[in-house]
Amino acid sequence: MSYVLGIDGGGSKTVCVLMDDLRQVLGRGEAGPSNYQSIGIEATLQSIQSAIHNAVEAAIITNTVNIDAICLGLSGVGRVTDIEVVKGLVKELQNNKLRINWVLKPANIVICNDALIALVGGIGHPVGIVVAAGTGSIVFGRDHEGQTKRVGGWGYILGDEGSAYKIAIAGMNAALKSYDGREIPTSLVDGFKQHLGLETIEDLIEVIYRREWGVKQIAALAPIVDFAAASGDIVANIIIDDAVKELVKATSTVIDAIFSADSVLEVVTTGGVWRGRCNIHERFAASLVKKFPNVNVIFPRYEPAYGAGLLALQTTQN
Amino acid sequence: MSYVLGIDGGGSKTVCVLMDDLRQVLGRGEAGPSNYQSIGIEATLQSIQSAIHNAVEAAIITNTVNIDAICLGLSGVGRVTDIEVVKGLVKELQNNKLRINWVLKPANIVICNDALIALVGGIGHPVGIVVAAGTGSIVFGRDHEGQTKRVGGWGYILGDEGSAYKIAIAGMNAALKSYDGREIPTSLVDGFKQHLGLETIEDLIEVIYRREWGVKQIAALAPIVDFAAASGDIVANIIIDDAVKELVKATSTVIDAIFSADSVLEVVTTGGVWRGRCNIHERFAASLVKKFPNVNVIFPRYEPAYGAGLLALQTTQN
Repeated sequence: MSYVLGIDGGGSKTVCVLMDDLRQVLGRGEAGPSNYQSIGIEATLQSIQSAIHNAVEAAIITNTVNIDAICLGLSGVGRVTDIEVVKGLVKELQNNKLRINWVLKPANIVICNDALIALVGGIGHPVGIVVAAGTGSIVFGRDHEGQTKRVGGWGYILGDEGSAYKIAIAGMNAALKSYDGREIPTSLVDGFKQHLGLETIEDLIEVIYRREWGVKQIAALAPIVDFAAASGDIVANIIIDDAVKELVKATSTVIDAIFSADSVLEVVTTGGVWRGRCNIHERFAASLVKKFPNVNVIFPRYEPAYGAGLLALQTTQN
Repeated sequence: MSYVLGIDGGGSKTVCVLMDDLRQVLGRGEAGPSNYQSIGIEATLQSIQSAIHNAVEAAIITNTVNIDAICLGLSGVGRVTDIEVVKGLVKELQNNKLRINWVLKPANIVICNDALIALVGGIGHPVGIVVAAGTGSIVFGRDHEGQTKRVGGWGYILGDEGSAYKIAIAGMNAALKSYDGREIPTSLVDGFKQHLGLETIEDLIEVIYRREWGVKQIAALAPIVDFAAASGDIVANIIIDDAVKELVKATSTVIDAIFSADSVLEVVTTGGVWRGRCNIHERFAASLVKKFPNVNVIFPRYEPAYGAGLLALQTTQN
């Protein structure tokens, strides 16, 4: 019996699944972050090893496990130098036997970015488009020939349109413009004041600049905009509609690049933005289907680590 | 003979002018930064003391100088707690005699933010509006009764519409959208590549996130957008027009709040954004005058420290 490993490595955690050749998950393990650009190679290796160990331990297998293929989908990995670094990591992994018998040929090692594994996991096969809108945003597609197209993913300073970060920033900007008298009144002013315990909306300055909040803390304020929009606030709904417009535009660009206007196609949405109460998912789907009638917008069928497992499995079946 | 001091304290330097009761500048001195929220009280006191010392030394006065009034216009100062801190600073200043004979009554100490002294210096008297668009942006007005209105000034994360920072960010965002295929072609792509020595525009990521650039370094890229706009680039001109629209909106909000639509009024523009080659100043003036026909848009007549001097002088003449 032989198995593959699918690994999803990100900034907050690492997930590993142990999969058999019938696509069944026999074990699943989690560990700490594995974005080596921030935490370094050694800590990343540690996290990946722990996630693999936990996945293998979770499987009800008493013998040594043969691993035929591995796929690592890591956030921020894309450039040639990144891939070389991760190849080095995979070599290190193989020195550690645990209960694993590594039988990897070079063709059975897949290193890719986290968008591809989210696409493959989300849809269940490697053709379609993933529209990721969490703290950041990116749209990534892959066609039947394996051609890929990425739009966005430029980060919170240069891009990330439609992300939770950008929605939160737009919400605070609108609240302050309303306070200035530049914008019509909006419940966002009270929304931010209440949520953050501010005496006046001017104290946003204190919160955002002096507490040295990071991107994640700011992105976590997006639900205030979502809630206001769900409650009918006009200004908040304009922000949500702008986010939808940006995500539709980015998705359309991917369709135009590697599919065609009448392609039968699945588009999977991943990330916290889609779980809002203000029907952002429905708005996005309606707007996209209007332009591309054969597109089906879905929520993820499986998690990204499962997608990594499928990509690893694929290398054993060619 | 008695004199006043006008002090302009900011994040990069401190300027002091020594002024007589005929509004003549007898001496001018510069020193290091004095934004106490970043550099601390001790270093701020040091900078202000040096600037005063340099101004007094530059004046051709051999005797001790009587100082009747002082005005400190400091960036980031506005809240009550800030003013208390600066009052403490002024007390410390008076312990240091140098060649100064301090004869200050409490009414002769003016502590205000940098927008007010820019307004008073820029126009030459304390009624009108200042539209500051440098690294950041703020619009600030004061009417004949001394009523003030501020719009904007919320900083690079929450606001600063029309600032050099926002123009630079919009330029990079548009270049990356064009590269993605989401936006029409623009010379901004080559503009940023050439200026920053990038092989591909994707390397903006490297520059902006990994070199850990600050707000000032990013704002310094605004001239790339200005140059492209001056050369006729459509995308760059949309960015400049958006900036103009935001600055006109903010200025209109101040006019509506404390003046009226037919007020005879001077609006002074300060900051690096206005010195571009793409006629941003003319675009702003044309758009504003169309809405408010009796408004006159000018460049600064005097520097902010001079404005501080005028405000100090005013306290001695009441």
